[in-house]
Amino acid sequence: MSNRKLKMGMIGGGPGSFIGAVHRISAAMDGIIELAAGAFSSSPEKSAETGKELFLPSERVYGSYDEMFEKELLLPESERIDFVAIVTPNHVHFDPTKKALENGFHVVLDKPMTFSYEEAKELNKIIEQTGLLFCLTHTYTGYPMVKEAKHLIATGVIGKVRKVYVEYPQGWLWNKLENTDYKQAIWRTDPSKSGIANCMGDIGTHAFNLAEYVSGLKLTKLCADLNCVVEGRTLDDDGAVLLKFEGGASGVLMATQIAPGAENNIKIRVYGEKAGLEWEQDNANSLIVRHPEAPDQIYRAGGNIPYLSSFALENVRTPGGHPEGYLEAFANLYRNFARCLYARKNGETPKKEWEDYPGAEDGLRGMAFVEHVVKSSNSNEKWTKFEL
Amino acid sequence: MSNRKLKMGMIGGGPGSFIGAVHRISAAMDGIIELAAGAFSSSPEKSAETGKELFLPSERVYGSYDEMFEKELLLPESERIDFVAIVTPNHVHFDPTKKALENGFHVVLDKPMTFSYEEAKELNKIIEQTGLLFCLTHTYTGYPMVKEAKHLIATGVIGKVRKVYVEYPQGWLWNKLENTDYKQAIWRTDPSKSGIANCMGDIGTHAFNLAEYVSGLKLTKLCADLNCVVEGRTLDDDGAVLLKFEGGASGVLMATQIAPGAENNIKIRVYGEKAGLEWEQDNANSLIVRHPEAPDQIYRAGGNIPYLSSFALENVRTPGGHPEGYLEAFANLYRNFARCLYARKNGETPKKEWEDYPGAEDGLRGMAFVEHVVKSSNSNEKWTKFEL
Amino acid sequence: MSNRKLKMGMIGGGPGSFIGAVHRISAAMDGIIELAAGAFSSSPEKSAETGKELFLPSERVYGSYDEMFEKELLLPESERIDFVAIVTPNHVHFDPTKKALENGFHVVLDKPMTFSYEEAKELNKIIEQTGLLFCLTHTYTGYPMVKEAKHLIATGVIGKVRKVYVEYPQGWLWNKLENTDYKQAIWRTDPSKSGIANCMGDIGTHAFNLAEYVSGLKLTKLCADLNCVVEGRTLDDDGAVLLKFEGGASGVLMATQIAPGAENNIKIRVYGEKAGLEWEQDNANSLIVRHPEAPDQIYRAGGNIPYLSSFALENVRTPGGHPEGYLEAFANLYRNFARCLYARKNGETPKKEWEDYPGAEDGLRGMAFVEHVVKSSNSNEKWTKFEL
Amino acid sequence: MSNRKLKMGMIGGGPGSFIGAVHRISAAMDGIIELAAGAFSSSPEKSAETGKELFLPSERVYGSYDEMFEKELLLPESERIDFVAIVTPNHVHFDPTKKALENGFHVVLDKPMTFSYEEAKELNKIIEQTGLLFCLTHTYTGYPMVKEAKHLIATGVIGKVRKVYVEYPQGWLWNKLENTDYKQAIWRTDPSKSGIANCMGDIGTHAFNLAEYVSGLKLTKLCADLNCVVEGRTLDDDGAVLLKFEGGASGVLMATQIAPGAENNIKIRVYGEKAGLEWEQDNANSLIVRHPEAPDQIYRAGGNIPYLSSFALENVRTPGGHPEGYLEAFANLYRNFARCLYARKNGETPKKEWEDYPGAEDGLRGMAFVEHVVKSSNSNEKWTKFEL
Repeated sequence: MSNRKLKMGMIGGGPGSFIGAVHRISAAMDGIIELAAGAFSSSPEKSAETGKELFLPSERVYGSYDEMFEKELLLPESERIDFVAIVTPNHVHFDPTKKALENGFHVVLDKPMTFSYEEAKELNKIIEQTGLLFCLTHTYTGYPMVKEAKHLIATGVIGKVRKVYVEYPQGWLWNKLENTDYKQAIWRTDPSKSGIANCMGDIGTHAFNLAEYVSGLKLTKLCADLNCVVEGRTLDDDGAVLLKFEGGASGVLMATQIAPGAENNIKIRVYGEKAGLEWEQDNANSLIVRHPEAPDQIYRAGGNIPYLSSFALENVRTPGGHPEGYLEAFANLYRNFARCLYARKNGETPKKEWEDYPGAEDGLRGMAFVEHVVKSSNSNEKWTKFEL
Repeated sequence: MSNRKLKMGMIGGGPGSFIGAVHRISAAMDGIIELAAGAFSSSPEKSAETGKELFLPSERVYGSYDEMFEKELLLPESERIDFVAIVTPNHVHFDPTKKALENGFHVVLDKPMTFSYEEAKELNKIIEQTGLLFCLTHTYTGYPMVKEAKHLIATGVIGKVRKVYVEYPQGWLWNKLENTDYKQAIWRTDPSKSGIANCMGDIGTHAFNLAEYVSGLKLTKLCADLNCVVEGRTLDDDGAVLLKFEGGASGVLMATQIAPGAENNIKIRVYGEKAGLEWEQDNANSLIVRHPEAPDQIYRAGGNIPYLSSFALENVRTPGGHPEGYLEAFANLYRNFARCLYARKNGETPKKEWEDYPGAEDGLRGMAFVEHVVKSSNSNEKWTKFEL
Repeated sequence: MSNRKLKMGMIGGGPGSFIGAVHRISAAMDGIIELAAGAFSSSPEKSAETGKELFLPSERVYGSYDEMFEKELLLPESERIDFVAIVTPNHVHFDPTKKALENGFHVVLDKPMTFSYEEAKELNKIIEQTGLLFCLTHTYTGYPMVKEAKHLIATGVIGKVRKVYVEYPQGWLWNKLENTDYKQAIWRTDPSKSGIANCMGDIGTHAFNLAEYVSGLKLTKLCADLNCVVEGRTLDDDGAVLLKFEGGASGVLMATQIAPGAENNIKIRVYGEKAGLEWEQDNANSLIVRHPEAPDQIYRAGGNIPYLSSFALENVRTPGGHPEGYLEAFANLYRNFARCLYARKNGETPKKEWEDYPGAEDGLRGMAFVEHVVKSSNSNEKWTKFEL
Repeated sequence: MSNRKLKMGMIGGGPGSFIGAVHRISAAMDGIIELAAGAFSSSPEKSAETGKELFLPSERVYGSYDEMFEKELLLPESERIDFVAIVTPNHVHFDPTKKALENGFHVVLDKPMTFSYEEAKELNKIIEQTGLLFCLTHTYTGYPMVKEAKHLIATGVIGKVRKVYVEYPQGWLWNKLENTDYKQAIWRTDPSKSGIANCMGDIGTHAFNLAEYVSGLKLTKLCADLNCVVEGRTLDDDGAVLLKFEGGASGVLMATQIAPGAENNIKIRVYGEKAGLEWEQDNANSLIVRHPEAPDQIYRAGGNIPYLSSFALENVRTPGGHPEGYLEAFANLYRNFARCLYARKNGETPKKEWEDYPGAEDGLRGMAFVEHVVKSSNSNEKWTKFEL
């Protein structure tokens, strides 16, 4: 099986989709995955249109994902898709993922995992039962310097963690964008498609995932303040959460979509008993390590950087100083997923660095986070216990 | 009276004092204030030693502030001190300030205002009754670009305020510094000298003051999580506070002393309905104005910058590109205080830009902030109403 | 022809090649080019090995580029490669490019164009005669904010250009790396493979190309100081050049490979009669526009940025705040080249934004630059006239 | 004599002077120097006006510096000025400095040293003959992190120096400012007041001084290109210089006044055989140390920073994170000069850190630099030997 690229079928990603193109670029970049089929839209016409633009043969472009699963299974394994990439709105995560898995296809799924926490729990069981590979695209954990940060903490460089600040400031929903025809704004602010949270589901889960990933700590309780800032919205477009982690560390999570001019600069700072770490997406190839009594250090991404851990080095493509960005971080998720899939096909044990991509547990915890912050925000009690 | 420099008497600021030297440099910088007398320590020997180092005539160096008030009043007005600068630990704020005012001396007082909220309320009354000038050294409101930020918000440039993020990360108390002979660490972590809060009193009040100053909004309720991170401490050395302001804006305040490697980078971000503002001390001469649909702008400090408001221009000394820093911001408080004092002596109306220095109300609100965050942190209720 | 991806054959890029992988990633990223054939090494075994790793069918992996041209021409046009990407060392640029063109294949060639200026002149004629598409991968002109800078200057935003500073500091040859088995260091410092210049050929030409591209001005004379810093080298590893442009503007170009710790931060600053522009690779998604009497502006890359020109917008893939980097800039060259190739195949007129990729004239001027800086550095005359 | 502040008399610094105020603030800041007398203008009325604003007794405000020297010498030594600060335009540097020294007054002089190189040579002899203290205010060598940079190089941290880049970009003369009543622009662009160079005398000498100071190397030859960019000027307002230093290092110096929007961001980068250093005024409290195979380091200014050298620590006033800027750097020159003067008065040996302020040799070399760059710019020979 290793004598060909892995074959990917895409669900969603039709006309106007931002994240569909991101998934396709990320999958294509490293020359180990090819887009082989797709059900790009619930409209068969739109699906066909997208498939044509992507140079897919028309027989591999489907009018629905049900059709895709059915027809692909009829193909010989050498031609059949190996996995699906699901890039639909939140309310269309559960069903195609469930069916993909039940039909034997591995899955890459856009976050958050599902429409509701209940769905996430059920999906988690299916993933476990099928034993298939599952990747949830929490992009930011794909950055090499985020991986280096996690590694430095895991190996004790900053000492026991005391404090975690994580923030995700955006401004794209600063005004009533959903009143235009901007598709993404429309569904994200619509409770029937987004779920019980907008901002916290979309970017709060990214921040939460990043905090747990880098710190290596699990959340134990939280206190949330969600806001619905732009008039007429029914879901949160802003929020802040006080955090408590196992072992006593505390933290603050801030996520907003209504800060005009803020783009996408997700940032994390973690302080331990001996040192601190700071990383932000706008300066993605640097990791600042702060010391109380020695000069701060700037760790840099790059394939030739001798002091980096294997976790960072397995996730770069160029020498230091050739900036890699969002698409490469996203592609790292795909590449690691693909490397694990190749290993499985070849009966080999994947490297631990490859297995380090977000999966089912991240998805479940993310949906639990959404559930708990909404509950906390509606409560007069200060602390809400976080439990799955 | 305007044919001489203003004469300052200092209380505190003896051997080992950090803030005493800061006050003296700030007062001296602009050539309009001279240090004329001092009671620098509760130890008369140490006071004398400091006085000699500062080239003061021995007869103007006192063994106590009581003595200073008594003796100075015997001098002719042309030689007598005009005001006192009080730079002692928190538990020695109330008494010398009260007595200074009651003896007719104007006062510059280091923050926080007092040891307790009760003292602050009483002091506030005395300030009002005496009608004397009172400046509380909330340094950061002295920065020209902080004043510009306030001005831009006040004149509607960012629209109605939605969100305030303010943070003050420090690391100097990352370990048990109070076990050494480091004077400032000892008293700040000592409830008998600091009051009911350490971190929130020392830097939390700065952050709170900055948030209200820049946004122009008053806090209405809060939800605090204070932590005592380094083992053996009885007062907070870390904390985070969710904020609600009049008019519906929300915010987050973070202050910590236990982030190893963090220095002093107080930072504020305010987002309104139309634009956002970002300022941080490490880049003090720039103010970033973010726009949702136009290039972000970098406002710069400098006496020759044509687009700055009079509030910024009255608080610089050099053309753009000659960085002014912490000491100049501090000196701006002194210079504005002195300009108002000159005006009063000359029977003139001071410019509104000069009157824009922190005073009694800031002090009272700061102590109320300390009172409320401690109360909230101890409470299971999420929100604590903020009221004076 | 537009119903399939463009087919690329690669020459060079075998084991140990840095730039071969960069070309492949860049070509693959946008899903419009597929690697269909290759002669990856002068060793047929190594070529075969690389071909296998890249999942190419063995019959499309060749032992030499001569063989590739011969065999590909036997294939039906629908399967045959459309163009070649040539990623060999400098001394193997001329021959394969010449033969590719003479056999009717369009060409993407890594810079500098050739081993010598004489070769460049000859190649230029062949390109002109064949009328085929030719792209020279001066990566940095592929960055959207570099294109925006060029556009702002071309439309008069900064006024007539006065001053150009361009710099390319590297440190990778800070020690005798060519004494190890590091392939790239070995050939770059070898006059029989690199030509008459190392540093100026490798990165000096990038800086020169960037300066002319952004400013829109042509060089008229120069004064160069090349240095051979690390003992034992025969080619320059460092240099600086004073520049004079048509219309009277002056400039400075700095390129070095021996600055320990410097990575790859190519930077350009252009000042005109009204304003200035600053861009650097380490902050690639921002373009600073400096104004003498108004706040500086930060232009940002992103598909949703309303104020950007079409030249920038045609060269991004994500909304603002999702950093795109070196690989995306490189991919922009490929995408524009491919769009023009599609247009040609379809008999359509390409957009002017697509035609904006570096080509034959850039290559010729770059080699003339190398020729002139070496001549100038060896001369006692201050100024050397720059002429093709 | 150590029981009083040092007494300073100022020459120049009347109405409209920028640098006069800078000198006064810098001298006053540390409480060890008092302004005691002045001849602030060649107009006795203006001198008196300035003296009054500065709260000087009228009998210590003079109509000319000749008068000041004469009258001050009549005062008892305990009241008499100890030194003069000369802050006049270049053409009024030589005479008052010469006379001050001949009358026994130590001197602080604004740079460049004199109107011409000839004057500088003569003045140098007088300084040597009188043996009095002489400080030339090359501000930038007063920054603590500049001193740290010099120290790191001197102690071998970066190895033998290879490359020096120094730049001083300004924009204040981007248009014909001398056609307004802006005093400083008028005299700087006037050959009868500025000398043979404007830009190179004003800021080129700063850059040159900084390069030699930090690198510890002496210039041996240069190749200059001076430009007169804004129409109607007779002196340079822009220039670039290729440099060669003893020991084989090379460098580039760039100085311009016509880059619109550039403020004052003087920057130096030095690369040695092992590592590199980077410092710029806009980020004055940080010094970046770059390593080829280890994380870069950020050295930070601050009185509590344990890893700093005594040269940096003797030149700060606050703990790390309280930004000190241009005025503090300037004040460091005054403080070190004053400490040495106190030591002399007390018959003590000053610390070597205090003696590290720019003096006669810096002044002479700076004027030689001006002489040589003008000569080189007018020459067709590439290299001009630099010799005193």
